[in-house]
Amino acid sequence: MPGKTPIDRIEIRLAGEGGQGMILAGIILAEAAAIYDNKNAIQTQVYGPEARGGASKAEVIISDGEIDYPEVINADILVALSQEACDKYAPNLKKNGLLIVDEENVGRVPVTSAIKVPIARLAAETTGKPITANVVALGLLVGMTGVVSRQAIEKAVTARAPKGTEELNRIALNTGFSLAEKIMKPHSRG
Amino acid sequence: MPGKTPIDRIEIRLAGEGGQGMILAGIILAEAAAIYDNKNAIQTQVYGPEARGGASKAEVIISDGEIDYPEVINADILVALSQEACDKYAPNLKKNGLLIVDEENVGRVPVTSAIKVPIARLAAETTGKPITANVVALGLLVGMTGVVSRQAIEKAVTARAPKGTEELNRIALNTGFSLAEKIMKPHSRG
Repeated sequence: MPGKTPIDRIEIRLAGEGGQGMILAGIILAEAAAIYDNKNAIQTQVYGPEARGGASKAEVIISDGEIDYPEVINADILVALSQEACDKYAPNLKKNGLLIVDEENVGRVPVTSAIKVPIARLAAETTGKPITANVVALGLLVGMTGVVSRQAIEKAVTARAPKGTEELNRIALNTGFSLAEKIMKPHSRG
Repeated sequence: MPGKTPIDRIEIRLAGEGGQGMILAGIILAEAAAIYDNKNAIQTQVYGPEARGGASKAEVIISDGEIDYPEVINADILVALSQEACDKYAPNLKKNGLLIVDEENVGRVPVTSAIKVPIARLAAETTGKPITANVVALGLLVGMTGVVSRQAIEKAVTARAPKGTEELNRIALNTGFSLAEKIMKPHSRG
């Protein structure tokens, strides 16, 4: 039964290089949660000296209740599209947290349980636009975790897609969903 | 002498209706501060039940030092493009804080010192696109306060402008700068 479990507080970090669209991905995820799924959400970017280094990260906290403390300390989920992002933020992942990396851009991962997917390549192959990697990553993340509903993320992606790119972004999102299904399948057989 | 005074901590709220681009404006302002002006910045969106009402707000904290507490409590500066945004956030403006409103969309302001400018109309008149109101507002805000440098906001706007709209956004930003100069002139004569 696909019942709805209330989410207490889930902390998500989306990290990559500048230009990979992770900040927009964070906004889309927060809007999916808050506007379309009726949850509370906080989306934050903290820019310190590292912002000048090209690394870029977005943080999203999602909860069914009120969110007391607005900053992510130890993420439950980290998506890292670059090696620098993985090196920097994976150490702050919670024990048993979910680490998703772009396998072609992240060679070294600190946990054996990391989910490795060629996110950018699959984005390029399915949409023709490598820049949709951020939306593929969102589809993968949502498909694997259910942190927001598929309908919510679909609406949020479409609402934020630049005019004329809605279909492209839908394809990217579905690519992420399909990847998630492939990854989850062996587990659900148990 | 236009010397550089270190900024301790400035809290800014940018608020309007959904679709007026205030979240993007917050990101641009934070990136101007952090990436191009070498300051620290935090940019946050808190989505509570009010997010479903259509109101949209971005918060930015800028500092030359470290930023301890990431949330805006009492803003130093509020830009409100809609009446709802003004009603909701003006009460939390600091005493002697700066309130900038779109004069055609905000009829009631709680403080007599509010700066009233027809931001959306001037955006439409100078660029042909009412949607550039958020960038006009940024130009006005930066021109009046110097919270980031003009060069920094220019670079940040250009970096975030969708391809092909860079020139349009430059015009919108300059519209904001010109408005600021007109508003500030009487004061600088004293």
